[in-house]
Amino acid sequence: MKLSSEPEKFEVIFLPHGRRDFFEEGTRLLDASQALAIDLASDCGGKGTCGKCKVRIDEGLESLGKIKPSEEKHLTKDMIEGGYRLACLAKIRAPLKVYVPEISRVGKQRLQTEGLEVPVTANPFVRKYFAKMPVPSLHDIRSDEDRLLDTLKKQYKLDPNTLVMEFDIANDFPKIVREANWEATVTIWKDKGLYKIITIEPGDTSGRCFGFACDIGSTKLAGFLMDLNTGKVVAVGSRMNPQTPMGEDVLSRITSVMMGGEEAQNRIQNFVVGGINEIIEECCEKANVNINEIYELCFVGNTAMQMLFLKLWPQYTAFSPYPPVLRRGVNVPAPKLDLKSNVNANTYFVPVIGGFVGADQIAVIQATRMLEREEITMDVDIGTNTEIALGNRDLVTCDSCASGPAFEGMEIKFGMRAATGAIEAVSIEPSSLDLIYRTIEDQPAVGICGSALIDIPAELLKSGLIDLKGKFVSKLAKVTNRLRKGAREWEYVIAWKDESATEHDIVITQGDIRELQKAKAAMHTGAELMLRMRGMTEKDINKMWLAGAFGNFINPENARTIGMYPELPTEKYVFVGNAAGTGARMSLISQEERAYVEKISTTVEYYELATDPEFQSEYARANYFPYQDLNKYPLTKDLLLRLGRIDENGKFIYPE
Amino acid sequence: MKLSSEPEKFEVIFLPHGRRDFFEEGTRLLDASQALAIDLASDCGGKGTCGKCKVRIDEGLESLGKIKPSEEKHLTKDMIEGGYRLACLAKIRAPLKVYVPEISRVGKQRLQTEGLEVPVTANPFVRKYFAKMPVPSLHDIRSDEDRLLDTLKKQYKLDPNTLVMEFDIANDFPKIVREANWEATVTIWKDKGLYKIITIEPGDTSGRCFGFACDIGSTKLAGFLMDLNTGKVVAVGSRMNPQTPMGEDVLSRITSVMMGGEEAQNRIQNFVVGGINEIIEECCEKANVNINEIYELCFVGNTAMQMLFLKLWPQYTAFSPYPPVLRRGVNVPAPKLDLKSNVNANTYFVPVIGGFVGADQIAVIQATRMLEREEITMDVDIGTNTEIALGNRDLVTCDSCASGPAFEGMEIKFGMRAATGAIEAVSIEPSSLDLIYRTIEDQPAVGICGSALIDIPAELLKSGLIDLKGKFVSKLAKVTNRLRKGAREWEYVIAWKDESATEHDIVITQGDIRELQKAKAAMHTGAELMLRMRGMTEKDINKMWLAGAFGNFINPENARTIGMYPELPTEKYVFVGNAAGTGARMSLISQEERAYVEKISTTVEYYELATDPEFQSEYARANYFPYQDLNKYPLTKDLLLRLGRIDENGKFIYPE
Repeated sequence: MKLSSEPEKFEVIFLPHGRRDFFEEGTRLLDASQALAIDLASDCGGKGTCGKCKVRIDEGLESLGKIKPSEEKHLTKDMIEGGYRLACLAKIRAPLKVYVPEISRVGKQRLQTEGLEVPVTANPFVRKYFAKMPVPSLHDIRSDEDRLLDTLKKQYKLDPNTLVMEFDIANDFPKIVREANWEATVTIWKDKGLYKIITIEPGDTSGRCFGFACDIGSTKLAGFLMDLNTGKVVAVGSRMNPQTPMGEDVLSRITSVMMGGEEAQNRIQNFVVGGINEIIEECCEKANVNINEIYELCFVGNTAMQMLFLKLWPQYTAFSPYPPVLRRGVNVPAPKLDLKSNVNANTYFVPVIGGFVGADQIAVIQATRMLEREEITMDVDIGTNTEIALGNRDLVTCDSCASGPAFEGMEIKFGMRAATGAIEAVSIEPSSLDLIYRTIEDQPAVGICGSALIDIPAELLKSGLIDLKGKFVSKLAKVTNRLRKGAREWEYVIAWKDESATEHDIVITQGDIRELQKAKAAMHTGAELMLRMRGMTEKDINKMWLAGAFGNFINPENARTIGMYPELPTEKYVFVGNAAGTGARMSLISQEERAYVEKISTTVEYYELATDPEFQSEYARANYFPYQDLNKYPLTKDLLLRLGRIDENGKFIYPE
Repeated sequence: MKLSSEPEKFEVIFLPHGRRDFFEEGTRLLDASQALAIDLASDCGGKGTCGKCKVRIDEGLESLGKIKPSEEKHLTKDMIEGGYRLACLAKIRAPLKVYVPEISRVGKQRLQTEGLEVPVTANPFVRKYFAKMPVPSLHDIRSDEDRLLDTLKKQYKLDPNTLVMEFDIANDFPKIVREANWEATVTIWKDKGLYKIITIEPGDTSGRCFGFACDIGSTKLAGFLMDLNTGKVVAVGSRMNPQTPMGEDVLSRITSVMMGGEEAQNRIQNFVVGGINEIIEECCEKANVNINEIYELCFVGNTAMQMLFLKLWPQYTAFSPYPPVLRRGVNVPAPKLDLKSNVNANTYFVPVIGGFVGADQIAVIQATRMLEREEITMDVDIGTNTEIALGNRDLVTCDSCASGPAFEGMEIKFGMRAATGAIEAVSIEPSSLDLIYRTIEDQPAVGICGSALIDIPAELLKSGLIDLKGKFVSKLAKVTNRLRKGAREWEYVIAWKDESATEHDIVITQGDIRELQKAKAAMHTGAELMLRMRGMTEKDINKMWLAGAFGNFINPENARTIGMYPELPTEKYVFVGNAAGTGARMSLISQEERAYVEKISTTVEYYELATDPEFQSEYARANYFPYQDLNKYPLTKDLLLRLGRIDENGKFIYPE
């Protein structure tokens, strides 16, 4: 029986961070968020006056009681009905699930939208043609349709037999051409061998023809408004993927759809479309383009994002043997997905390869041209799921491994996304074991983002603070007060409380190291087993393309030092940035590129790691920093030898 | 100033008959309808107890006052809100516009649904394929899509590159195939060079594949549920076209759309779709077919019907030079038109030739194969608008003339549609000038329908009761009391009041004769000018195909006697019945026939009568019975000579 003197505790979980803890009854939600280093804004110090700490209560809303008058000032009616409250005025009296929306988060997210620039000539599926038609008379009684088709044939040599008029525009067609005095611009979309007239606009609008390319990442959305006549980007926008409240990683999102059925499927689709539509509107405003001037859209994303975006039932892809529903590129009328664009715009989703190798990986293979090269190259697309491809013009194979979200700051005590105040780079001074770090926009530290989560274990290893198994060398607590025994486990202080924008020291814990270790081991295993299956070693790799969520912000040598991927000379690592975004743009503006991604989808062979009997033993070996057998990492071995971390036999040298 | 002793009179118009007159204030609507020989049912003699005389008040509803308790018993809430009242309880106190719905009309409409049977082998655009797919495993990780496509290739040699999966079905596809244990039936619709998978059904449903063909006539709708596997009709249904309240002829319907704008356009489209959907449901019930088993629909109708059905703005087609909006065949997803069918069914509308030569005329040319013959043939498609085509394999030309609705019983005092009790055939005994008639289903006479409206002037002419100009020979009133001077004009009694189901003698008036004369003159002019334009005479015609609203019920010799079309020996006239319905069925079940109608649409040349300088003079000559120059009608001239109606010089012999 609980003693009445002990105050009751309730668990609170903050999304999309995924951080949770138990808090005493009556604790303010804002205080709980600060205790968990959640990047929740608050300018007034929690007096309920600034209104910045808006959060959405996804579970336990009723325990907060009635809305307070001061909340009503800051929240719209829709927000109140949607479960929004101010965290500074909410007291914990029951278990809560709390979503921190983008607007309430500290700082501005840094999202990589740039990627490898591959020169592609604009040859889009959508083109505009300005037609000057003769006026009907008793001696020229052709139908309006024939009048237009004959003119297009005469002016542009378009074959009427391949031209189809979309039904929706036939309605107003007779009015439009007459009001425009028989001078009108048609937009034609090439759908396989058919040319579909999707709009008829009065006058000459042929100079204005736009498209939208978008990378749907599990975590972020990056959109590009493109001029289809020139193939150039005219505006860029990005957002966090609003699906995260329904699951941080793709499997939990699929699970929530499986559990919630069609209703959940619709909701999660609406979430992502809502985010995309915001980007479209933002880009249109920036570039002074009307939504109706977007005539085609092109999307890239992993297979789970594809299924959730297109409302394909994702259940069976989540279980062995993980078959995707659709493999080929998909054309869908934009209104069927509720996308903001011309009502007759087509939406193309780039093909996928398998259940865990999606259009994003196709885009990497496309942008790197690895399937066209004579030299062998490998790409590693780092993310919650890491995809790896290997080969050359003769054969490219790919696989995928569940590396988990640790390097995205999830499951890490002070992990955070790459936003203002995030510690993004760390180096440790070997003699004092003290460190220096850099934050995004040089603001007081709020947490640690992905690129620093690679630096930290590398620097800890190089400075001897952790051993080859990733364990803190506790004896060194004598040398630096940064290393200490925390409440539950050993931890190392990255930023002291007084340097930070939080109420805490920002630390990395033994548990955090363990999470990072598991993640990098999974990535390494994916690459290593792929090489073995092909009868190759890392020596055969001429270039390694690094793609994925980190973009170009990581230190590739540190990543190599911790054994995230096979060891190569530094110059062989090449960043490709947001290759998915690059691929989306290429497939939007070029018919040849779209044919090319379909070719990649049928040509690249998927290797299912689950069928590899060596998976478990290899994964165990990869759990060492950088790897159990140091001879596979001669450069790192040399480095650790030079630094005096290991002896000639590769044994870790513990301090006296 | 009106004297108070004179009761006020108000105009009442009855639709779809189009008959109108002024009635004294306080007259019961039922009595007014009987005065105008409207075929409105009433079993109780107007006591308000049978509830059969339901009418919809389209204008002047408020003048009828509150609904009466006895009305409430017979009318549903929806009907009351829709303006329905009982005619026997409604008293005229203001001008009224009254629509008599099908259910309230006396007798059952006789609609011709049969047409020329042209043998066509079933080769539909929609086919079903039963696929038995291998179950996924770790060694067979293909996508669900590839698994299906590969199976279709293996079992049926279908090329995956030409196969597209419709987006709407991809959603449930993974569920369906698994629940069906990987045995499923796909329906594939061939759209130009693409094969679209439009349904995936569990198990083997390949034996059940249906389509719906429909003739959208201005007056009637005729629908055919077809088995696409066999090409056979499985059920037939028909209705009056529910658009008639918005205008009896096509021009008045187009006008009401022009006036009422988009709202009217939607309403008139809903009307016709509502009627078609009723037929679809009726046919499905008769044949025990599910609505979802209808995978394609095919429609035929004149150009106005096409525009109103597809919601194409019809305004400009109504004015010179009458260009249609679309000429080619149109494919539209059935849900966009709200048609009851499988959600992914395609709707095909047969092509048209011009603004007044529609898909119905294409169907006649298709069914008669006139474009394939060596011999010259002509077709005359009789209706409110009469279309005429002439030619052989070298060239077929066509034109169209506004013959008006007189032969459909409109604008004729006792005219009515071909329903129970309609006088359908008449012959006059030459010596007594008395007559015999036949009614549909041998019921007491209610009015006169189209076929009798051809017989009557022919019989009047042969018996000398009218002269060659169509004028009643008043002197003969001495011989028969059937010929008399009515209230306003001369008239001839067809059925005496006591033989009829009405309160009146049923007569044909001088005005009626004039209307019929104008109508037949227009038809004749269309045929004659077409012949002249081609440098031909009626002697060049080897066969004349008679199509249209009358179906096969007219007496072709009587029609020839009044000069409705060029004079040929009787055996050269061939009835083709409901050719539009035949054409709709042919284009539904056969890819070759659908290619053929597209060919007809591009090959047949339209001749615009408005550009013919002889139109007026020819029309004047054709106003005679049968024609001003009797030498053009030698058979009729001989007949009239033998009967003693004319002298050797062709002069009419008036009685002493």
